[in-house]
Amino acid sequence: MMNEAEIRVRYGETDQMGVVYYANYYTWFEIGRNEFFRELGFSYRALEIEGLFLPVVESHCKYKSPARYDDLIRVQTKLVSLENATLRFDYNIVNKEKGKDLAEGYTIHAFVDKRGRPVPLKKINPTVWERLKEIVER
Amino acid sequence: MMNEAEIRVRYGETDQMGVVYYANYYTWFEIGRNEFFRELGFSYRALEIEGLFLPVVESHCKYKSPARYDDLIRVQTKLVSLENATLRFDYNIVNKEKGKDLAEGYTIHAFVDKRGRPVPLKKINPTVWERLKEIVER
Amino acid sequence: MMNEAEIRVRYGETDQMGVVYYANYYTWFEIGRNEFFRELGFSYRALEIEGLFLPVVESHCKYKSPARYDDLIRVQTKLVSLENATLRFDYNIVNKEKGKDLAEGYTIHAFVDKRGRPVPLKKINPTVWERLKEIVER
Amino acid sequence: MMNEAEIRVRYGETDQMGVVYYANYYTWFEIGRNEFFRELGFSYRALEIEGLFLPVVESHCKYKSPARYDDLIRVQTKLVSLENATLRFDYNIVNKEKGKDLAEGYTIHAFVDKRGRPVPLKKINPTVWERLKEIVER
Repeated sequence: MMNEAEIRVRYGETDQMGVVYYANYYTWFEIGRNEFFRELGFSYRALEIEGLFLPVVESHCKYKSPARYDDLIRVQTKLVSLENATLRFDYNIVNKEKGKDLAEGYTIHAFVDKRGRPVPLKKINPTVWERLKEIVER
Repeated sequence: MMNEAEIRVRYGETDQMGVVYYANYYTWFEIGRNEFFRELGFSYRALEIEGLFLPVVESHCKYKSPARYDDLIRVQTKLVSLENATLRFDYNIVNKEKGKDLAEGYTIHAFVDKRGRPVPLKKINPTVWERLKEIVER
Repeated sequence: MMNEAEIRVRYGETDQMGVVYYANYYTWFEIGRNEFFRELGFSYRALEIEGLFLPVVESHCKYKSPARYDDLIRVQTKLVSLENATLRFDYNIVNKEKGKDLAEGYTIHAFVDKRGRPVPLKKINPTVWERLKEIVER
Repeated sequence: MMNEAEIRVRYGETDQMGVVYYANYYTWFEIGRNEFFRELGFSYRALEIEGLFLPVVESHCKYKSPARYDDLIRVQTKLVSLENATLRFDYNIVNKEKGKDLAEGYTIHAFVDKRGRPVPLKKINPTVWERLKEIVER
């Protein structure tokens, strides 16, 4: 399963180089994984309310071609690994109208509770665990 | 009392017009009031930990001359009114090296508790109330 | 004419109060006016490429009720005045699902060229001027 | 040579998890390399004015311990490689008061001209090239 989220580039996301500031791609990754959970039938908001948090422990991005103001872009998000304590999403940022690859990256997340202590997802929320297990890409 | 905080303009704060994006001046206002509290002997962080929050209920900014990347700017912050339920800060943004006025604005804040319910500052934290009362500019 | 743009609140737009940080409403206003121009048949990106810029000279926001992560919000944008040298947009931020008003504000923009010098819109771009003149709300 | 820049964590940099949002560490990396150039006797702003740009082509961050609002943090920046077409900075984010490591990462930058075309730094700006060559860490 690959989620595709669509984003219109905001003016404030550009910098004086005339292209999108590099840190903002990570904000788009966040939108990607948010929509990934929604498509899966879970809401990340609801998971947090139930006490499960997925803070980022590692993030990476390779920039291939600049995104510009008002571009319509696509964030393609895939779950590529699921371990007892972490999971990893891979992302691909594409210019929708031109079909051009703009960037690719990943984020690794830990499973923690409200206080930031590691928790085993399998035990804490078996429903989410099973559903993720089914669709993780090998 | 007027607090003066110094800020170096960040690259990511600019937009493709080559100047600072208008919303970012509000982030600088936040730094101004944070340093205002610190100079006063209080830490806003500590106030929140004790259960007092000051969400913004109104904000305003007039832009006179653009701030640019790497400029050294000064945020001048004054407390200009203190009511039972709200207070107001006025700000002046100045280019430190050129002595030029860049922007001016204000924020109005409510006093609320952890759940967002209005609380009377005078009763909840008389020490802060008295100290602010002393220095409010008329 | 009132444009309605829809936005899903991003995680990174919240702050530790658990609600959207006050400066981010101004980013939403920007999306509102961007979509306003698009609905009108112009693209603000194209206007800039032709050499017309609309920097913000004044901005204001009143916060009524907090927006939260993952909320679906609506930005309602109206053009409320058009002068020789400036125009003004009014905005209303609404929680789409609950129909609740979250914030309202305005931005005033100048007409300038690439170098930041004021230009009369009527002369520089009569097509845009006439179209805006038609739909300005009194 | 390792540059050390000091930053006070801004309220708006936190998210509803009560800690700094992961994308904001990249903004701090930017401050680090900006101050690195300044310490070296160059201003990145001046380099851009002369027509040399260093867009990020790759970025990475590992998060060890969360940064929180009002923390005083230190960004330690080192130049770890210098090639014909790229350079790489390594960063370490430390909580200054507690001496605790918060995050580490790197950015790789290309040398391009105003139009985004790759340029050889050695030829374009031999002074900067020589100075960087001297201090690159092996």
